[in-house]
Amino acid sequence: MAEYRLHCFAQSGNAYKVALALEMASADWEAVFVDFFNGANRSPEFLALNPMGEVPVLEHRGERLTQSGAILDYLSETLGRFKPAPGMRREALRWTLWDNHKLTSNLATWRFMTNFLPPEKRSSEVIAFLEGRAKGALAVLEGHLADHDWIAGPALDGGPTTADLSCVGYLYFGDEYQIAWEHDYPSVMGWLDRIAALPGWKHPYECMPGHPLPGRD
Amino acid sequence: MAEYRLHCFAQSGNAYKVALALEMASADWEAVFVDFFNGANRSPEFLALNPMGEVPVLEHRGERLTQSGAILDYLSETLGRFKPAPGMRREALRWTLWDNHKLTSNLATWRFMTNFLPPEKRSSEVIAFLEGRAKGALAVLEGHLADHDWIAGPALDGGPTTADLSCVGYLYFGDEYQIAWEHDYPSVMGWLDRIAALPGWKHPYECMPGHPLPGRD
Repeated sequence: MAEYRLHCFAQSGNAYKVALALEMASADWEAVFVDFFNGANRSPEFLALNPMGEVPVLEHRGERLTQSGAILDYLSETLGRFKPAPGMRREALRWTLWDNHKLTSNLATWRFMTNFLPPEKRSSEVIAFLEGRAKGALAVLEGHLADHDWIAGPALDGGPTTADLSCVGYLYFGDEYQIAWEHDYPSVMGWLDRIAALPGWKHPYECMPGHPLPGRD
Repeated sequence: MAEYRLHCFAQSGNAYKVALALEMASADWEAVFVDFFNGANRSPEFLALNPMGEVPVLEHRGERLTQSGAILDYLSETLGRFKPAPGMRREALRWTLWDNHKLTSNLATWRFMTNFLPPEKRSSEVIAFLEGRAKGALAVLEGHLADHDWIAGPALDGGPTTADLSCVGYLYFGDEYQIAWEHDYPSVMGWLDRIAALPGWKHPYECMPGHPLPGRD
């Protein structure tokens, strides 16, 4: 059995935050597929694993961890990577909380509703609501990255911190949103490119199991 | 000038998370009113204070802090209160992240749309969407509190930790939601009563400035 076991599926940006950390650190990890689109995260077995009914769940040395931001904090210790500089710990926490509150929460749900929910269940009003909030959050991120290479400074090992790994969660699914990325968010795009150029980077669809998008290979 | 200055307004449960910590610790603090309902949080002056355009903002000894969860973490050190036990730090972080992601984000927006947004701007589909997600989060909290007095154990000083203070943010506005609290969430109610019985507790409308709800005193 691998050292780390990550319960995940390919379309989950929240699980990707953790998978990316493990990949970039060349950790010994394996994916345990959660068949989210067939309701596996609501099964009694999964709810026993995580009563919140969410991926990611990470198992490591007898510990079972949930919430991507808490898992990233844990991995920054066990992997010795992505840890904010001492004076930047709370700044990284601030952006991780903001990601959960404003960026991922709206972007992920917007994407889900426009890509994965059956058309007859979609609400154009809800989609417009989520689009507005997601783009508002992206504008805040764009403003910050216009004069920062990394969200909360470089990590102790150089490169991205846990805050960067949290915020990128849903951003490599770029073509699944109706967004003019290069035009509207050039600094976000530059930052995504910086991270994608680092050793070990993989796209979520390349490092987690699950169904491809309809119409994709 | 008071030692702590909190930019806030009465209806903000996110600001209340911080105000409640300050009140319960009998800190020397003052409120700086942000006229949110007249757009003060979008003014150039406020965006210079916090580019995220959000309350709370806390000023203390030359530091300027934003994001309630990061501020609570800061206050747990400066106030010497509400700090999770050493082995529970990440558990408190996990629930604070969950609150930002699933509880506050949906509950606060649902409340805003049903209480504060002009009727002609309300979307019944968006309201139903937020109601469903807020109640889903409350069910998770209810399940957890059914066998826990505190969300992440008692704090080092006994009583609630930063995770409790984060999660209660929007829950003392109970009569502003269409929820059968006692019937559906009895454990949540018991926990709210435990906190409200502690020295220094105040309702948000009693410790932060701003307009009362229409029709209230």
